[in-house]
Amino acid sequence: MVSLQNEKVKLWKKLKLRKWREREQKYLIEGPHLVQEAVFSAREQVNTILIDEAFHLPAEWPLDGIEIFQVTHKIFTELTQTETPQGIIAICEMSRPAVLLKPGRYLLVDGVQDPGNLGTLIRTADAFGLDTIYLGDGCVDGYNAKTLRSAQGSHFHLPVVHKNLFQLSKEMKAQKIPLYGSSLQGHELDQVSVNGPYFGLVVGNEGNGASPELLAEMDQQVKIPMRGSAESLNVAVASGILLYWLQAKGLA
Amino acid sequence: MVSLQNEKVKLWKKLKLRKWREREQKYLIEGPHLVQEAVFSAREQVNTILIDEAFHLPAEWPLDGIEIFQVTHKIFTELTQTETPQGIIAICEMSRPAVLLKPGRYLLVDGVQDPGNLGTLIRTADAFGLDTIYLGDGCVDGYNAKTLRSAQGSHFHLPVVHKNLFQLSKEMKAQKIPLYGSSLQGHELDQVSVNGPYFGLVVGNEGNGASPELLAEMDQQVKIPMRGSAESLNVAVASGILLYWLQAKGLA
Repeated sequence: MVSLQNEKVKLWKKLKLRKWREREQKYLIEGPHLVQEAVFSAREQVNTILIDEAFHLPAEWPLDGIEIFQVTHKIFTELTQTETPQGIIAICEMSRPAVLLKPGRYLLVDGVQDPGNLGTLIRTADAFGLDTIYLGDGCVDGYNAKTLRSAQGSHFHLPVVHKNLFQLSKEMKAQKIPLYGSSLQGHELDQVSVNGPYFGLVVGNEGNGASPELLAEMDQQVKIPMRGSAESLNVAVASGILLYWLQAKGLA
Repeated sequence: MVSLQNEKVKLWKKLKLRKWREREQKYLIEGPHLVQEAVFSAREQVNTILIDEAFHLPAEWPLDGIEIFQVTHKIFTELTQTETPQGIIAICEMSRPAVLLKPGRYLLVDGVQDPGNLGTLIRTADAFGLDTIYLGDGCVDGYNAKTLRSAQGSHFHLPVVHKNLFQLSKEMKAQKIPLYGSSLQGHELDQVSVNGPYFGLVVGNEGNGASPELLAEMDQQVKIPMRGSAESLNVAVASGILLYWLQAKGLA
């Protein structure tokens, strides 16, 4: 059992704040479903597991090399960020992309504000097998509790990285990675050809789309053809359609 | 000013419950953004507007034929379903599809549980200009406050109708409307041909997909090709991709 004054507990509690997550490059996940996905898909990223007094760890989980602490219910309650805690928390290391940017398939997220939307975006990027998802400066934190919940474990399948997108788009251009930006002023998808399997796709803020400065760096600005009356699509829905289109046309 | 004992107020309060919404075929919307969309897009469906003491109705809204009541702040507080009420509520009539089912473009939603997801689905169906969205027996209510909020006014652009989907799919077959069902056991989209602009598309519950009995009625079961590791897509994202695919291929 670990006491509330313990230095470790103090650090764990700090990880509830974005500032400390970024400084330590660590984050908290909660609940058996997410922790199981982490230990099976990305065990090397799982640092520590904390269990509430009453929680029993499943015998089949591969836990070699992971520190495990049982904590009092009081400490657990101080650490949890959910209304109905499920008795298990893990501390994970943020995954990092390769140091050198290589041709690949990337999603660049500019200024998305809603953590649930961002989680769904991460899950969608994962489903399409993207190499990395980059979050721009104005984006909500990729490691907050709501984002992690709605991403349903996709954080353990691809790196989720905060980075300046303008600078990144310059690097991608230098690597000759074709850049596509979602914009209501863009060309409709059926009018645009896709240049091979690699891409950087920029999607933007729920209300305003991606920033004009960033869109100006794109090779193509594209728009989903829509016949109806809704002004726009949800950003995760739009991203799913664009990723499907890039996959279908880029591999054809 | 209307008093709390008033029969009208009693009825308005009842509309917070699904049972009463279905019985009366009426529902509540809140906030200037949604009410504005309603009076501009579907004024004939807006029955009554209730305003809190301090709210001023914009002079440019077309309000002919709509009953308007100013209520006390106390009554308003009893009627509101949001944490930060914005001073205006409207009572709307549910829209209905044409009595006779005609060839058209329809989304059939089987057992979706999350009101936010359902709202995003309704918004997506609207963006693609669908004729009606049908919600099956096990679906969350299409007119609850969260669904209405996340649909962002799309309820005023297309009918949102609760209906038995099995029976409906029989009626669609009789009308020779091609039926497509989203299923992890389906054929990948690139292998499937789309038979003209009309369709009924079935999408299913977040965890389990559409029911096997309903899928058995489909002409085609289809699957989005995915190269990555996420087990599945969010139902609204998947629906967006399928509607884009049906539109692109059906009109080609």
